[in-house]
Amino acid sequence: MYANYIGFATVGRIQVKPISTSIEDGFALPSIAEFEKAITPKTKAILICNPNNPTGYLYSKEELLVLREICLKHDLFLFVDEVYREFLYGGKSFFSSLNLEGMEQHVVVFDSISKRFSACGARIGALVTRNKEVLASALKFGQARLSPNSLGQIAGESLFDLSDEYYRGIVAEYQKRRDVLIAGLNKIPGVKCPNPGGAFYAVAELPINDSDHFCQWMLEKFSYQNATVMMAPASGFYATTGAGKNQVRIAYVLNADDLQAALEILAEGLKVYAAGSN
Amino acid sequence: MYANYIGFATVGRIQVKPISTSIEDGFALPSIAEFEKAITPKTKAILICNPNNPTGYLYSKEELLVLREICLKHDLFLFVDEVYREFLYGGKSFFSSLNLEGMEQHVVVFDSISKRFSACGARIGALVTRNKEVLASALKFGQARLSPNSLGQIAGESLFDLSDEYYRGIVAEYQKRRDVLIAGLNKIPGVKCPNPGGAFYAVAELPINDSDHFCQWMLEKFSYQNATVMMAPASGFYATTGAGKNQVRIAYVLNADDLQAALEILAEGLKVYAAGSN
Repeated sequence: MYANYIGFATVGRIQVKPISTSIEDGFALPSIAEFEKAITPKTKAILICNPNNPTGYLYSKEELLVLREICLKHDLFLFVDEVYREFLYGGKSFFSSLNLEGMEQHVVVFDSISKRFSACGARIGALVTRNKEVLASALKFGQARLSPNSLGQIAGESLFDLSDEYYRGIVAEYQKRRDVLIAGLNKIPGVKCPNPGGAFYAVAELPINDSDHFCQWMLEKFSYQNATVMMAPASGFYATTGAGKNQVRIAYVLNADDLQAALEILAEGLKVYAAGSN
Repeated sequence: MYANYIGFATVGRIQVKPISTSIEDGFALPSIAEFEKAITPKTKAILICNPNNPTGYLYSKEELLVLREICLKHDLFLFVDEVYREFLYGGKSFFSSLNLEGMEQHVVVFDSISKRFSACGARIGALVTRNKEVLASALKFGQARLSPNSLGQIAGESLFDLSDEYYRGIVAEYQKRRDVLIAGLNKIPGVKCPNPGGAFYAVAELPINDSDHFCQWMLEKFSYQNATVMMAPASGFYATTGAGKNQVRIAYVLNADDLQAALEILAEGLKVYAAGSN
């Protein structure tokens, strides 16, 4: 999961329990049974990020219907981080959890201008729900901190005036990047990477056994044609100790040419690393 | 107290216990005995705002030494909101709690560019402490939300290049405003207002018994020469139910001429209100 969820939860003294997904099935939604193992009388909500950071997995309508079933059965909120919802590839369409029938009082969607408009520095987002009680409580916390910054609010408002052209442009660009990256990764011996349906991240399995060590080694000890590649060890995105040690998260936020070069550097790095000169 | 402290505390599930101050002694620091009545084994910190919002009270070095004694005896943090520390009147000087000897591991100061530079919309502040554990924990929460907005950071940094001239200018201006306001308030029959040593607020006692009703009446039903005065009912700044019902907080953020006009309007409003036409 996006690691900062745990930080925010800690502020409110909330315990986050992971439901593990697996690279073997492309990080798809686990079964109802896996959720029910974790649910206790103290459970208040299920949180997902759709499309997902770090895996890029796009949850289908069918999977969201499974979550609806669990939430209604156990009377849980469904919190959905939808900040990447325009970043969809291969002609896929997005089904927002706000459209889940019968879940009007359960669904709370988090949104932000950070990703859609590459405006992370503006620190402007939104909480969207039809639940008036949740909204009233959220508003009180919003009033306590008075408001987000005024320049970010003004910029954020104007960004929504951008035409469809803008969105088509970013999706086409990121789809090209995804295609280059995923095809290239799966061509490297020992590397496996599911094809993400959205966002701009991918989690790849590498022929290594300690991604923290490998990522640091790539940054500090390795270079190929005077360059190297920075990746995030996937272990930081797993709440389960020891998980993800042979996986990395790659953010495809470079243009296709740079990604092509990065793939060559990674392939070369894996060769040298395997040869044991680390 | 500044009411939003309670909102922030609620997020962290922290209970705030008020130590009541009184307009009779100008909102000075209550006795050690009053603090010790409220301290339990669960007490973690004492929080003050110096100079104070809403009272404008400036805590003396002697009062801060009293707080030091309590904090050391009970091993408590001393959280001090010093956002108004340049706003000092009558030649008074400021003693920052960061200078309390023996309290290096106890004192945490909160600062902000909001008041000093009239830059509330920038949402930029600072936490200052010599306690490395507190700093490391605060940094983790800071990292969880990634960073404040980038434009605010850039603007905030440049504002600290302003010369002493800027600070002398604002202090002279606010001192003039304070002098006009406090003298004028105490001339209105039935009105009492201590002379605040800092910040830009004053809490005045009025010849009324429901400041929520009076402030709303002033806004909705009263006008004098086509104008009225907006004040904050002091009840919202007391955690004790029923306290402050005959008090209002006035922010002297208007120029001296407008404050003079506001005083006339208030005097007239009190006359009409007392006559019972409300």
